[in-house]
Amino acid sequence: MAKDVNPPRGNRDFLPLEKRKREQVLGVIVDTYASHGFQQIEAPAMEDIGRLTSGQGGDNEKLAFRVMKRGEDLERSLAANAGPDDLADLGLRYDLTVPLTRFYATNRAKLPAVFKSIQTGPVWRAERPQKGRYRQFVQCDIDIIGDSSELAEVELLNASLDALATIGLSDATIRVNHRALLTANIESLGVSADQAGSAMITIDKLDKLGIDGVVAELESKFGDQVSAKAGEWLNSIQGELNVPAELEYMFSTVGALHPGKLRFDPTLVRGMGYYTGPIFEIEHPGSGSSIGGGGRYDGMVGRWLGTDVPAVGISIGFERAVDLIEGNLGSEPDGIVLILEDDSAAVLTNALKIQRELIESGEEAVRLERRPKKLNILLESLGEQGFGRFASVDDKSVNLAALNIRVIG
Amino acid sequence: MAKDVNPPRGNRDFLPLEKRKREQVLGVIVDTYASHGFQQIEAPAMEDIGRLTSGQGGDNEKLAFRVMKRGEDLERSLAANAGPDDLADLGLRYDLTVPLTRFYATNRAKLPAVFKSIQTGPVWRAERPQKGRYRQFVQCDIDIIGDSSELAEVELLNASLDALATIGLSDATIRVNHRALLTANIESLGVSADQAGSAMITIDKLDKLGIDGVVAELESKFGDQVSAKAGEWLNSIQGELNVPAELEYMFSTVGALHPGKLRFDPTLVRGMGYYTGPIFEIEHPGSGSSIGGGGRYDGMVGRWLGTDVPAVGISIGFERAVDLIEGNLGSEPDGIVLILEDDSAAVLTNALKIQRELIESGEEAVRLERRPKKLNILLESLGEQGFGRFASVDDKSVNLAALNIRVIG
Repeated sequence: MAKDVNPPRGNRDFLPLEKRKREQVLGVIVDTYASHGFQQIEAPAMEDIGRLTSGQGGDNEKLAFRVMKRGEDLERSLAANAGPDDLADLGLRYDLTVPLTRFYATNRAKLPAVFKSIQTGPVWRAERPQKGRYRQFVQCDIDIIGDSSELAEVELLNASLDALATIGLSDATIRVNHRALLTANIESLGVSADQAGSAMITIDKLDKLGIDGVVAELESKFGDQVSAKAGEWLNSIQGELNVPAELEYMFSTVGALHPGKLRFDPTLVRGMGYYTGPIFEIEHPGSGSSIGGGGRYDGMVGRWLGTDVPAVGISIGFERAVDLIEGNLGSEPDGIVLILEDDSAAVLTNALKIQRELIESGEEAVRLERRPKKLNILLESLGEQGFGRFASVDDKSVNLAALNIRVIG
Repeated sequence: MAKDVNPPRGNRDFLPLEKRKREQVLGVIVDTYASHGFQQIEAPAMEDIGRLTSGQGGDNEKLAFRVMKRGEDLERSLAANAGPDDLADLGLRYDLTVPLTRFYATNRAKLPAVFKSIQTGPVWRAERPQKGRYRQFVQCDIDIIGDSSELAEVELLNASLDALATIGLSDATIRVNHRALLTANIESLGVSADQAGSAMITIDKLDKLGIDGVVAELESKFGDQVSAKAGEWLNSIQGELNVPAELEYMFSTVGALHPGKLRFDPTLVRGMGYYTGPIFEIEHPGSGSSIGGGGRYDGMVGRWLGTDVPAVGISIGFERAVDLIEGNLGSEPDGIVLILEDDSAAVLTNALKIQRELIESGEEAVRLERRPKKLNILLESLGEQGFGRFASVDDKSVNLAALNIRVIG
């Protein structure tokens, strides 16, 4: 009896056709970002656990997979009856932003003054597995480090809207807010500056709780004067809003190329505590939740350098984006199967030569198969795998024009 | 004072130009393998630790990074004073073969009868860091599962030689042996069948120890009769050897397309215990050690299924291959920098339009920059990053033909 064999909980295998689609989508996103002058970099999957749990990662820090110490280090910690925190020295990255800030601090001298990075790759979070949430998933980030001007925001938004369009998600829009505006709005409700963060956590639940739910939670936190004002404020936000002065440059320049794609939303919070300026969230009518987001985080990179470094980034949630794309980008797979008429070296040699000629003539996939007892079953199965044509090969050399390539099915 | 900020020990950052080269090389290898009808798949980076330490991974099992249990599971294990083995439930893969056997067992019903896979991706080993040896490194594997005939070996060798040629390593050759031949040779020295593995371990050190060293070690293990015969045998192996019958089909068919690229070496061992048939090792005159290898491992896949499944694979050591390649494959990067004459929205809007037109006209990388005080310094720095051309943009619209693009430097 076969054992039950599965990937670890919350992890997935990708079969050939799904993998092909993912590689296509990722490739198109990266190429689009590269065409805007961003440059791909790579940091390792693991970082020191101390760095991953230093307060930059927000709630995700709790979800970090910890990698155990090894050898004598581990023995020492075990002998000392160390707690879980002392048994691990490394962790798997839970996002691409914390590693990027470390990467920049390590390599700054070798990077341009304004560094425009592309990072794609898996991240890992020990989430309770549920539908559509995985423990390993891919993120696609672009970031601009070293530019404090809004040009950086404009470039990110413009490049992201282009990338979304090239993968067929041109219906995506981006909600925009500014942390300074949000803080001012919250303080105008009568919440003190040091309580603004707590109010943001509540307002961030607007999608889930609705206005009444948010007002009720604010009342329990800050009393009925605050909640009454909040109710007025939230109910006043309707329809197309005037873009505030702080965001006008961004809206006018991005809007010239992508009319109507940015939407000002004064209630947008974005969970992470590290944002310091404009914040973004990408939406698509086909998805119930956001498919990406980002913002300015000027305080974070400098932390490892002991100096201030402006930074802004935006991330496309790759898994959600892929799910929204039906079929393949570009061409469907259309491989050829060469059926070897017998097992002789002469037939195989001939088939290898024909395979090489077909590849050199531009065919993307040419596969050899021994002739099975039931050819139809083989061809049907390979047809489903994207090999839609076939030809038989014997030991007589044949030129491509004379090769009889037939369509399967 | 800035903190000392580095990636974890034995791990590397890849800067833009290095990352570009790596992506190019990997892309060409994958495309070549795909052209031969192999299909890319992906398994997660983590597998259950029990699977990673079940004896399939040889010495690499000891090098697995272990991922700690979480939450109550961890607390229970700690409370029970569990040893290191009970504190981890997952591990990072140390190769792509053990995950592939699990992948195949999980997904067999959805795969073609003969499954030809491409896997590329990082693997992790807790090695003592040293020059040229990393704790995260990329492997490129192709495997054929479900074909017990030598056609599978021929396809692997042919595709690998093509892939090596497309990345500029056409000087690579492949040493070939057969485990059955090796075992027979060892037994003919007077070593009993159950001691053959121990003798292989010694013979595997031929590169390091030389014939005399191997003979001495065999003498200490098996006495002077065995070692005398071994000395005769090893000294008799010189120059071009006749290809034995077991490998003739392989040599004649692969040799027809790649003359002289396979070399029979009766002393080739390949470390892993799981090989059951032909074994391969890829060599290149520019590298002191092998740049890849593989072989047939018929016993391994079936283990998770409770049935026998033939399998054969070959792996290109990506890091060593990349190190052997000088410069870029294909074109050097040749980006354009658009210098914004001022910070107005009008100039930026115009620049974004020109950027879009340049991208649509086929430019691969068009980057915006605010005009700095010292333009030359900026341009020189960007020139080193692969942006070798520039143009200034003001608020007057301009068509591409009239755009004055100058070469940097």
